[in-house]
Amino acid sequence: MLADINCDMGESFGLYTFGNDVAIMPYITQANIACGYHGSDPNHMAQTVKLARDHGVRVGAHVSLPDLAGFGRREMKVGREELRNIILYQVGALTAFLRQAGTALSHIKPHGALYGMAASQAHIAEAVADAALVYDMPVMGLCGTLHETVYRARGVGFLAEFFVDLEYADDGRLIITRRHDAVDPAAAAERARKAVLGGTLTTAGGRTLEVRAETVCVHSDTPNAVEVAAAVRDALAEPDHS
Amino acid sequence: MLADINCDMGESFGLYTFGNDVAIMPYITQANIACGYHGSDPNHMAQTVKLARDHGVRVGAHVSLPDLAGFGRREMKVGREELRNIILYQVGALTAFLRQAGTALSHIKPHGALYGMAASQAHIAEAVADAALVYDMPVMGLCGTLHETVYRARGVGFLAEFFVDLEYADDGRLIITRRHDAVDPAAAAERARKAVLGGTLTTAGGRTLEVRAETVCVHSDTPNAVEVAAAVRDALAEPDHS
Amino acid sequence: MLADINCDMGESFGLYTFGNDVAIMPYITQANIACGYHGSDPNHMAQTVKLARDHGVRVGAHVSLPDLAGFGRREMKVGREELRNIILYQVGALTAFLRQAGTALSHIKPHGALYGMAASQAHIAEAVADAALVYDMPVMGLCGTLHETVYRARGVGFLAEFFVDLEYADDGRLIITRRHDAVDPAAAAERARKAVLGGTLTTAGGRTLEVRAETVCVHSDTPNAVEVAAAVRDALAEPDHS
Amino acid sequence: MLADINCDMGESFGLYTFGNDVAIMPYITQANIACGYHGSDPNHMAQTVKLARDHGVRVGAHVSLPDLAGFGRREMKVGREELRNIILYQVGALTAFLRQAGTALSHIKPHGALYGMAASQAHIAEAVADAALVYDMPVMGLCGTLHETVYRARGVGFLAEFFVDLEYADDGRLIITRRHDAVDPAAAAERARKAVLGGTLTTAGGRTLEVRAETVCVHSDTPNAVEVAAAVRDALAEPDHS
Repeated sequence: MLADINCDMGESFGLYTFGNDVAIMPYITQANIACGYHGSDPNHMAQTVKLARDHGVRVGAHVSLPDLAGFGRREMKVGREELRNIILYQVGALTAFLRQAGTALSHIKPHGALYGMAASQAHIAEAVADAALVYDMPVMGLCGTLHETVYRARGVGFLAEFFVDLEYADDGRLIITRRHDAVDPAAAAERARKAVLGGTLTTAGGRTLEVRAETVCVHSDTPNAVEVAAAVRDALAEPDHS
Repeated sequence: MLADINCDMGESFGLYTFGNDVAIMPYITQANIACGYHGSDPNHMAQTVKLARDHGVRVGAHVSLPDLAGFGRREMKVGREELRNIILYQVGALTAFLRQAGTALSHIKPHGALYGMAASQAHIAEAVADAALVYDMPVMGLCGTLHETVYRARGVGFLAEFFVDLEYADDGRLIITRRHDAVDPAAAAERARKAVLGGTLTTAGGRTLEVRAETVCVHSDTPNAVEVAAAVRDALAEPDHS
Repeated sequence: MLADINCDMGESFGLYTFGNDVAIMPYITQANIACGYHGSDPNHMAQTVKLARDHGVRVGAHVSLPDLAGFGRREMKVGREELRNIILYQVGALTAFLRQAGTALSHIKPHGALYGMAASQAHIAEAVADAALVYDMPVMGLCGTLHETVYRARGVGFLAEFFVDLEYADDGRLIITRRHDAVDPAAAAERARKAVLGGTLTTAGGRTLEVRAETVCVHSDTPNAVEVAAAVRDALAEPDHS
Repeated sequence: MLADINCDMGESFGLYTFGNDVAIMPYITQANIACGYHGSDPNHMAQTVKLARDHGVRVGAHVSLPDLAGFGRREMKVGREELRNIILYQVGALTAFLRQAGTALSHIKPHGALYGMAASQAHIAEAVADAALVYDMPVMGLCGTLHETVYRARGVGFLAEFFVDLEYADDGRLIITRRHDAVDPAAAAERARKAVLGGTLTTAGGRTLEVRAETVCVHSDTPNAVEVAAAVRDALAEPDHS
């Protein structure tokens, strides 16, 4: 693989189904598992951890603001200590299922609104770092933004992430939407290769920006998520076939 | 100490205060800390874990059915696997704050309705055992009841608990109420000594029953909880003074 | 129509979709709309009320125990006054959206575990009656069971309901499951006609029982719910075509 | 009375007690009752509505962002339609208990963070107006701020509110804190008289600002809330004694 492929997983809740984890898991290398604050519940966490383990996929804690009704996609004003505790709670909860499944935590990824807040607000990035240091875990995020600086200053590992199925604004910010639209698998694969190999991305406004892509994210709730994941997997795996 | 003294702690939630943890902590040896399902939240869990650590008090996970509005005191029909996952989630969440505070988990105690259900329903006791084995932790409970048998069969440690501030029915069952009434500290201390040293208790109906009391519970939400805790502490500490 | 056709609607939650309300609404005459305690949220309630109004479908409050994670399908021990208040809260919340849409409440239907509890526990049926009387609303339920007696004694209207897509035990009780399986549309239509016109049903064990069916329920979460609803609609509408 | 006296009430939740409603109710004329989103639950709503009715106190819906853990004091990004529905849900729920108690709704008051957001963000004020118009209810708020303009343009009644126990910034904004500190009852009474009769207030920075005070708010969670309420009641009632 030229880069890791990560996907947000285990976001089903009670009888509600979200995404198609079983179909996507074979194509990824890192599963960011929801911890009950924006999606998931203890049953789905237990199942998803086992599914990841059975596919040899590494597991990260996909931590969120407390907002099940808004799926963690609504910004909220929270203080640093409060947020650190919110994140620790979720990471801890996930480790119980990792312990049960006999596997280990691999990383932390802020979810939804929190992902964007960490990239732009210093006290939010510091809170993420506070929690990450307790577990000595690297954190996924957009490169070139504030939190990368904060994490590096704190000694927290940073995993530069690139999104193949979301648009970027001309200033490099990710455009977060509440629902994800279908994307063309071939175009997504091409975006992935361009980012991973060429180090560039094209914004919604047509600009070319530099980007680092250590891990490529495919979402599970785009309507054709499995096709996108398969295409990206092929695109990033090609050199291994030679 | 002739026996351990435990107390349910960290049950405040958001701006809502419950019990007087700061005043009671000096008198106990085991703090059962709520994990967000019947009370508490990440902030209160973090604070309470630190408070316990600073007093050298051991910390257990006080796990509950998911029922914040009912404070975990309403019975609910849950399956074994579902309950195991519910318990694991809470224990895991608590371990994050223990990790942060540099201390370790000491035991598990089912809360409220779950406490009674574990004592009388086999699949509930099995679920508690399933979760306890993941963490290799002993579980507190009423002696002479079903779950003690289940735990022993499964190789789970059992900590026989005696309540100084709740009444027992003539069949040995605990009478769980939604609110706790004040109790006489001297009477509570006498009950504690009788149970710990004499191995007996007197039921609400006046019968004498045999009992084992490895750990004595004082509740934090009886109106005079601090006085009760202090009296019990004195009663159980006396022999050390000789 | 030979009888009403009702369906549980508006059970989506946040980004989570449940059932296919838009496709089913044209076939029914009564929509039981979830009120946020087992499913739904203010957005989905507002949308579903408008959808029902636009199809000339009457709207009932589909009230539940507070259990979003369990979709209201887990029994819970609740007192009469507490349950009355829980129901009133949900009915009131729904009336806001009815008021906004310029339409009126037509009935109340207990959901999931509460439906079965109302049929067999007197204090539960009394609590439902307490709430129904505040709004002077009839309540849907299984005929021949305890709550019918309670409602009649209290002067609460009773709407005898028959389920075409669930099995009945030999004692006439409904077999409630957490997930609904697909049923044959033709068989469901035949069951509906037999119940409505013939006044009988066949249990899972093969017994024939007498039944009253003033309203026939089709579930929205059976995998082929739309086909079932359409078939039942045809079956019950036939005489109108002559 | 020279002006109304209002208080936020019914904010207890489950076993958690908040404020002293029974002691304060005799001193006020308007009770803003929490609707379950930042505090309260169906039981406390039912009780508080009855308590208000028995004291001849008018009842308003105290509506909040969905944030029980943060007591509605954390800002959250919400859209206009979503917020309108959130408010309608809460108002509707409260009307059930008013209906049961045989009394009527008198006004709407946004709570906590939402109160400040309505005063400064146009789409928030519009959403409040949308909901208020469904019930044809006036809304409490700080005079001289954006929402007053919005409400007047929409034909929504506006009740100018003055706070005797919170500080104002030099620009007239209210300083919202998560916890309320004790205030001197005599000073609070003097502030109330000055605002109601003189139309002025003194900011935290010592500036004098013009203010309208049709209703004076006393909080129930200041440590000496009852004394403050009694003093304000006396201060505003004096002229009636002549």
